[in-house]
Amino acid sequence: MQIELLDQIRTQNPIVFNISNFVTVQDVANGINSIGASPIMSEEIDESEEMVAISSAVALNLGAFTTPQVAHIKRVGQLANQYKKPLIIDPVAVGAIKFRLDVAEQLLSDFQVDVIRGNAGEIAALAGIDWQAKGIDAGQGSGDLETIAKACAIKRNCVVILSGPTDVITDGTKVAKVKNGTPLFQLHVGSGDMLTSIVGAFAAVSDNYFEAAKAACAVFAVTGQLVAEELGGELPGTFSMKLMDKLHLVTRAQIEEKLREA
Amino acid sequence: MQIELLDQIRTQNPIVFNISNFVTVQDVANGINSIGASPIMSEEIDESEEMVAISSAVALNLGAFTTPQVAHIKRVGQLANQYKKPLIIDPVAVGAIKFRLDVAEQLLSDFQVDVIRGNAGEIAALAGIDWQAKGIDAGQGSGDLETIAKACAIKRNCVVILSGPTDVITDGTKVAKVKNGTPLFQLHVGSGDMLTSIVGAFAAVSDNYFEAAKAACAVFAVTGQLVAEELGGELPGTFSMKLMDKLHLVTRAQIEEKLREA
Amino acid sequence: MQIELLDQIRTQNPIVFNISNFVTVQDVANGINSIGASPIMSEEIDESEEMVAISSAVALNLGAFTTPQVAHIKRVGQLANQYKKPLIIDPVAVGAIKFRLDVAEQLLSDFQVDVIRGNAGEIAALAGIDWQAKGIDAGQGSGDLETIAKACAIKRNCVVILSGPTDVITDGTKVAKVKNGTPLFQLHVGSGDMLTSIVGAFAAVSDNYFEAAKAACAVFAVTGQLVAEELGGELPGTFSMKLMDKLHLVTRAQIEEKLREA
Repeated sequence: MQIELLDQIRTQNPIVFNISNFVTVQDVANGINSIGASPIMSEEIDESEEMVAISSAVALNLGAFTTPQVAHIKRVGQLANQYKKPLIIDPVAVGAIKFRLDVAEQLLSDFQVDVIRGNAGEIAALAGIDWQAKGIDAGQGSGDLETIAKACAIKRNCVVILSGPTDVITDGTKVAKVKNGTPLFQLHVGSGDMLTSIVGAFAAVSDNYFEAAKAACAVFAVTGQLVAEELGGELPGTFSMKLMDKLHLVTRAQIEEKLREA
Repeated sequence: MQIELLDQIRTQNPIVFNISNFVTVQDVANGINSIGASPIMSEEIDESEEMVAISSAVALNLGAFTTPQVAHIKRVGQLANQYKKPLIIDPVAVGAIKFRLDVAEQLLSDFQVDVIRGNAGEIAALAGIDWQAKGIDAGQGSGDLETIAKACAIKRNCVVILSGPTDVITDGTKVAKVKNGTPLFQLHVGSGDMLTSIVGAFAAVSDNYFEAAKAACAVFAVTGQLVAEELGGELPGTFSMKLMDKLHLVTRAQIEEKLREA
Repeated sequence: MQIELLDQIRTQNPIVFNISNFVTVQDVANGINSIGASPIMSEEIDESEEMVAISSAVALNLGAFTTPQVAHIKRVGQLANQYKKPLIIDPVAVGAIKFRLDVAEQLLSDFQVDVIRGNAGEIAALAGIDWQAKGIDAGQGSGDLETIAKACAIKRNCVVILSGPTDVITDGTKVAKVKNGTPLFQLHVGSGDMLTSIVGAFAAVSDNYFEAAKAACAVFAVTGQLVAEELGGELPGTFSMKLMDKLHLVTRAQIEEKLREA
C-alpha cells in the first residue's frame, strides 16, 4: 500500500478541480485542503479549459446537477481526457433515481473516467446489476460486493471503489480491500463526496490509479477510525469537525499502523 | 405531546426530499440525518417525480430561489399533493421582500401545503397582517402571535408553526405552545431551515400534521436548550456542532423531562 | 484604529447583502451573524433592488459565478452605487483564471466599488502587475506588496485590502498594515470570503471606508490569532468552529491589546 502518496500530496499541493455537489461542497473543499491539496470549484463552462489546464486532477460529483450543468460536466470530462488529467466520478444516487442513472450512462460514454467511487447501490447500478438502493444510501442487495465492483470496473474500463464498511477497490482484475473505517462516516452527509475528491488528490500524485485509489481509501478510512476511537461516542457533529483536524495531522506511520487490508 | 414520533423516525428512517436554500443546505442535510431520517436534495425538475415518489415527506425552502427554480418548486409541490406526501414550506424573508411574498402567494395557490413554518414576520406576511420584518429576522410588531398564527392557518388551510422564543403551533382552531429553546438558535444561521426539514421528518411518520409539528418543535427546541445548558456560554460555532451531536443522541425521556408546553 | 466600529456593528446590526460563493456561503453567513450583523443572500435579479434597498452594505464575491449570474452581479453593483450603499468586491482567483479577470475588469467598469479585498495574486492581477498566482491561493511574486496594493487602489479608485501574513490596507495614498493573524486562516477554505463580507459590516457603520477596512482587518486577524493561541495545534476544523465563537465574543479591549499595526 503506497501510503507515501500522502506525503507527496503534502509536498506538491496539487490543485483538484471539482464539479461539486452544492449540498456538501464546503466540506469537500475543506477536506481537500486539510489533506494538503488545493481545491478549486466552478460552475461556469467558459472557464472549464483554464480550470482543467491548471489542475492536477478532476473530480466530478453527480450529487445535485441540473440539466444545463450536464453540458458543463461533459465538457470538463472531455477536457480532462484531452489534457490527460486523472478523472474521478461520484455517481450519487444513480441506484435510486433512474434519471440520474441515464445521465451518468450518457456521460460515461462521452468521456473515459479513471476512477468511479460510489456505494454498493450506485456501483451495482453502473454495473447493470439489480440492487435495492435507498435514496442517497447504499440500500441492500444479495450480490457479492467484490463481484459487483469487478463487473463495474470491467464494463467501465476503470478503477472502481465500492465504499462501505469494507471498501472494495478493483481495476477489474486485481482486488484490494480496506477494512478500516467507522459507522460515523454514515452519520455525516458528504463523507463519500469528500473521499471522491480526496481520491483525486491521490491520483494527482501517482500515475497508477489503482494504487492511488487504494491509498486514498486507506488514509480516509483510518483517519475516520482514529477520530472515532478518540471520540468515545456517536457524535456526528464533533466527528466531522475533528475529521478536518485529523486529515491535516495524520501521518503515514499512523495510517500504516492501523491499516487492515485484505 | 407525541414525542414517540422521534423513535418512529429512528426506526423508519424516512426519506425527506428538500428543495433547499443553498446558504444552509449542508446543515439542513446533516440535521435531517442526525435525527434519524435520510435527506435528499435536488435542483433538477426532470427528476422531481422520482424524487417525490421515493420520499416520505417534502420540504420546500424559499430562502434563495431564482425565477427558473420557481417552476421547479411549483412542480414538486404539485407532485407532493398528487402522491399524497406531507408538504412543508418555509417562506424565508417574505416579510421583508415583496418579491418573495408575491412568489410565495402564487405558490400557495398552485398547491396545498400541510405545514408552514416561519418567524413572526414571515407568518404575519402570509396572514396579510402588518408587521415590521427585518431581512431574514423576525423583526417587531404589536400583534398577538397566537392571533397571527391562527389567521395564517385559517387563510392557508394548514398547520402553522410560528417560531420564536415561544413556538406557536396551530391548525387554526387548536393551539399549542412550546416554551423551550435557547437564544443560541438565533446566533446560528439556518436553525429555522433545519427545523422546517425536521418537521418533514416528523410528518413522514404521522398522518396528524398538527401533532407532528408539535413534536418536531418540542424535540428541536429542547435539544437546543440541552446543548445550550451544557455549553455554559454564547458560543455559536460550538453550539451548531453540538446540536448535530445531540439531535442524534437525544432521547424521548430527555425531551419529555424538559418540555414546557402551554 | 477605530475598533469601536465593532461595537457599532453589534448595536446597529446592519444588514449585509451578499452575492456569495456557493462553496463558502454558509460560513460567510455565520461569520456575518457572529460578529453582530445580519446576512442576506440572493441569486435572483428580480429581488435585487429590494435587497439593496434594505441593506446597509453590499458584498460581491466572484468565487463561483456563472455567466448568467454576471448580469445579476452587475445589476446589484449598479444598485449599490445608485442607493449609495458601500460596495465591497472579492475577486476570487482572478490571478489564476483569465476568464475571471476579464469578467472582473468588465464589472469594475460597470460600477464603482468602495473596497476590493483579495490576496496578492488577485490584487496584482487587478493592478495589471505580473504575479504567479496558484488557483485560489496567493501564489508567489517578486513585487513589493505595498506597491501592488497602492497601484490597484489608484487604478480602481477605491480602498484595497491585500490579505496575507501582513494585511496591507490602502486608499492609494495612506497605507496601514495589520501584522496579526494566524496560518490557520489558510487551512480553512473561505476565511478570505468571510473577511470580505465582514468588511461590508464595518463599512455599513462608517462613511470612512479606509478606516472601516482597517478595523475589519484588525478585528478579523486578531480574532483568528486569539483562537489559534488558545488552540495549541494545527486543527483546521476546530479552528473554524471556534472562530465563529470568538467573532461573537471578542471585545474591543481584546483587539486593541493584541493589535500590531504599522
